[in-house]
Amino acid sequence: MSMTPSPVRIVLMATSHPGNIGAVARAMKNMGLQSLHLVQPREFPHPEAVARAAGADDILANAVVHSTMKTAIADCGLVVGTSARQRHIPFDPVEPRECARLVIDRAHEGNAVALVFGSERTGLTNTELALCNMLVTIPTSDEYSSLNIAMAVQIIAYELRLAMRNQPVLVEQVEPLATQDELELFYQHLQSLLAGTGFRDHTSNGHLMSRVRRLFNRAQVDRNEIRILRGILSALQQQRVSDRAGEV
Amino acid sequence: MSMTPSPVRIVLMATSHPGNIGAVARAMKNMGLQSLHLVQPREFPHPEAVARAAGADDILANAVVHSTMKTAIADCGLVVGTSARQRHIPFDPVEPRECARLVIDRAHEGNAVALVFGSERTGLTNTELALCNMLVTIPTSDEYSSLNIAMAVQIIAYELRLAMRNQPVLVEQVEPLATQDELELFYQHLQSLLAGTGFRDHTSNGHLMSRVRRLFNRAQVDRNEIRILRGILSALQQQRVSDRAGEV
Repeated sequence: MSMTPSPVRIVLMATSHPGNIGAVARAMKNMGLQSLHLVQPREFPHPEAVARAAGADDILANAVVHSTMKTAIADCGLVVGTSARQRHIPFDPVEPRECARLVIDRAHEGNAVALVFGSERTGLTNTELALCNMLVTIPTSDEYSSLNIAMAVQIIAYELRLAMRNQPVLVEQVEPLATQDELELFYQHLQSLLAGTGFRDHTSNGHLMSRVRRLFNRAQVDRNEIRILRGILSALQQQRVSDRAGEV
Repeated sequence: MSMTPSPVRIVLMATSHPGNIGAVARAMKNMGLQSLHLVQPREFPHPEAVARAAGADDILANAVVHSTMKTAIADCGLVVGTSARQRHIPFDPVEPRECARLVIDRAHEGNAVALVFGSERTGLTNTELALCNMLVTIPTSDEYSSLNIAMAVQIIAYELRLAMRNQPVLVEQVEPLATQDELELFYQHLQSLLAGTGFRDHTSNGHLMSRVRRLFNRAQVDRNEIRILRGILSALQQQRVSDRAGEV
């Protein structure tokens, strides 16, 4: 099963550092995106791009280089620009999560979709922003909002993947959980062992066993673990018996 | 208004490439995280770390270097390991979104929280995984699941930021979690008590204590509960002593 949304492309505008192009390719491939379009990259192809792409060099090899943004988005039904906050921008940006839902909906409806990232230093220019249907802004700290371009692609691609994903019907082979009966026997075992010691309950409300039950309920103990716990209690109990036998 | 969850730290295990440490620092600062802990980094400090950190060199300057994971998480109530899919792991991983909600909840309750990332080539080792209360796995493409470490930190930090923002202002008074140090003392107590009984370990691989640790790690025991558990062990221990005294 491929989860690849073939009609969703990443468009990088005037990227300065070839290493960033490679890191973008890797981020895309990690999230199942394949289509990379480069508009006037300063240096491409470049060995640093290949190095940072790690295993995603197929995405670099298939990257399409354009001389203008217009040709890179010509066949797209939806063009989403990425933008930092606080800029003079033509419309209110959406956040990545909402953006991803819209992008995947449009892609499923058969539209080619472009997500456009500006150059490292300037971001998208006003001319480029004007070619977008929608803007997305990644929420960041007020003190330091300048995301690396590959990081920005990674976050958007991650949200796209979540939006694309169907609920998998994955079934694993796991140890069954202890039944409530088995847990009950464990609690009784522990309680009887404690009763024999004259243990004083120092909890604020005197409900030690209810605290213990809450702990193990939360842990969702499996059958193997309950056997281990019972084994520990039995060992302590037999120890006591044999210590006592020593008294006689 | 600062949205910084100061008690949430990023812990990097045995990082090979100093550039990745710098990229992690930048990813953290973008999302308002501040506390970086490095366990046996191969090269640190390093100019490449500073270069990739861009404006986040304060995070590098304040990074704490450790020789073991244990000291890096000693005071933490919650330790979250990051893991790729398909590995033999002690418990079911959660996804970043759910993880972030839990982490921010625990942090708001006053617990120090560590998010631990393994080395670039190997990820977290089984020994390191065994020290975690919880695992998080970033969903990726089946074809190419190997995320760059700084990218993984970026996605988790992004989800933490969203979770922080959505956190209701109302904070309930809850018992803090037991720290890893307190848990360690409990395990030692239990082990010494068992050693005195001549208890035989009947687990399939003879690793009873590691199963016990896994159970309690998963349960995320609070400070009150650890007191109860220690009290139970002390009662059993004193019982034994007094039984023995009876022998004389």
